Amino acid sequence: MRIFGIDPGSTRTGYGCVETDGRRHSLIACGAISMAAADSFPQRLARIHRELATLLASFTPDCVAVESIFHAANARSALKLGHARGVAILAAVEAGCEVVEYTPAEIKRAVVGYGRADKHQVQQMIKLLLGLPKTPAPHDAADALAVAICHLHSRSAWGGPCQVRLGEPDKARPTGPRSWRQYRPPAHG
Amino acid sequence: MRIFGIDPGSTRTGYGCVETDGRRHSLIACGAISMAAADSFPQRLARIHRELATLLASFTPDCVAVESIFHAANARSALKLGHARGVAILAAVEAGCEVVEYTPAEIKRAVVGYGRADKHQVQQMIKLLLGLPKTPAPHDAADALAVAICHLHSRSAWGGPCQVRLGEPDKARPTGPRSWRQYRPPAHG
Repeated sequence: MRIFGIDPGSTRTGYGCVETDGRRHSLIACGAISMAAADSFPQRLARIHRELATLLASFTPDCVAVESIFHAANARSALKLGHARGVAILAAVEAGCEVVEYTPAEIKRAVVGYGRADKHQVQQMIKLLLGLPKTPAPHDAADALAVAICHLHSRSAWGGPCQVRLGEPDKARPTGPRSWRQYRPPAHG
Repeated sequence: MRIFGIDPGSTRTGYGCVETDGRRHSLIACGAISMAAADSFPQRLARIHRELATLLASFTPDCVAVESIFHAANARSALKLGHARGVAILAAVEAGCEVVEYTPAEIKRAVVGYGRADKHQVQQMIKLLLGLPKTPAPHDAADALAVAICHLHSRSAWGGPCQVRLGEPDKARPTGPRSWRQYRPPAHG
């Protein structure tokens, strides 16, 4: 099974493609689409869409996983991020891929085992899980790999077809917090 | 000159195409792309993009005008609106159209002459300017026509090529408030 993770952004969009044979995960490709400072915003959106379409056609993943954002710094930055996310999701739909989303806490729990893990812990786990000689760079590529691995783990845990489709009601999701604010670390001892 | 206005939304996207001979404006077409409740969010984005691409190919406008939003109700609604706006702008770029944006106050001033005009006044002026027997419906189509007319007025006022490209610095814009909060009605008498 092959999953393509996307970490959309208006200045840089990370991507990472991961494959699993059911027991071991392996890295197919990862990287980031960087925007030229001279590009206008519409040109940037067109570039994200075009490059993702090329990558998806080349790697032919079974599913595309995107990080879901519920708490942006403000409405303006959320709006800008939304544009980039919109064209990324469109590229996935046009490539005939199923699109799934996971919250940051779900990704951290699936990759590290703890929903409040820091970026460094996530990167170390990605390196370990994919058997890489060093942590993937830039961090947007690592974030994209994390969401792809999250989906691999979730799917194998359910043993069924993809169930967390974008925009569907929360009841379709597995248990777990939807945001950092709702998260309470488990009581030990 | 032919301008295509878009009022993007995740449940309904309004569009309106207006043509001018330099003296009189005329309506080419207007309407709204409504989403089926059963459609998933990625399917809705794909539908907005596909239908706008078809409309732009059919009407071949010189320019596409979109309302700019700076103050959404919250980050979540801004993010959702951003997705729809992103795919709408992408359709315009792919159709080879220049994309321009105007704030709600700029649109109201250009259409009604007053930046704090209400929806009813805007609709009445659209009806008058386009010589329509009744106000355009649904309101998303009227909003899309308003932004198209705003660009026609701005352009003819400047007498030059399109200068308000999306994402460009504010200094390229004519004077005027960028948001409702900054707007102060002129002092009379």
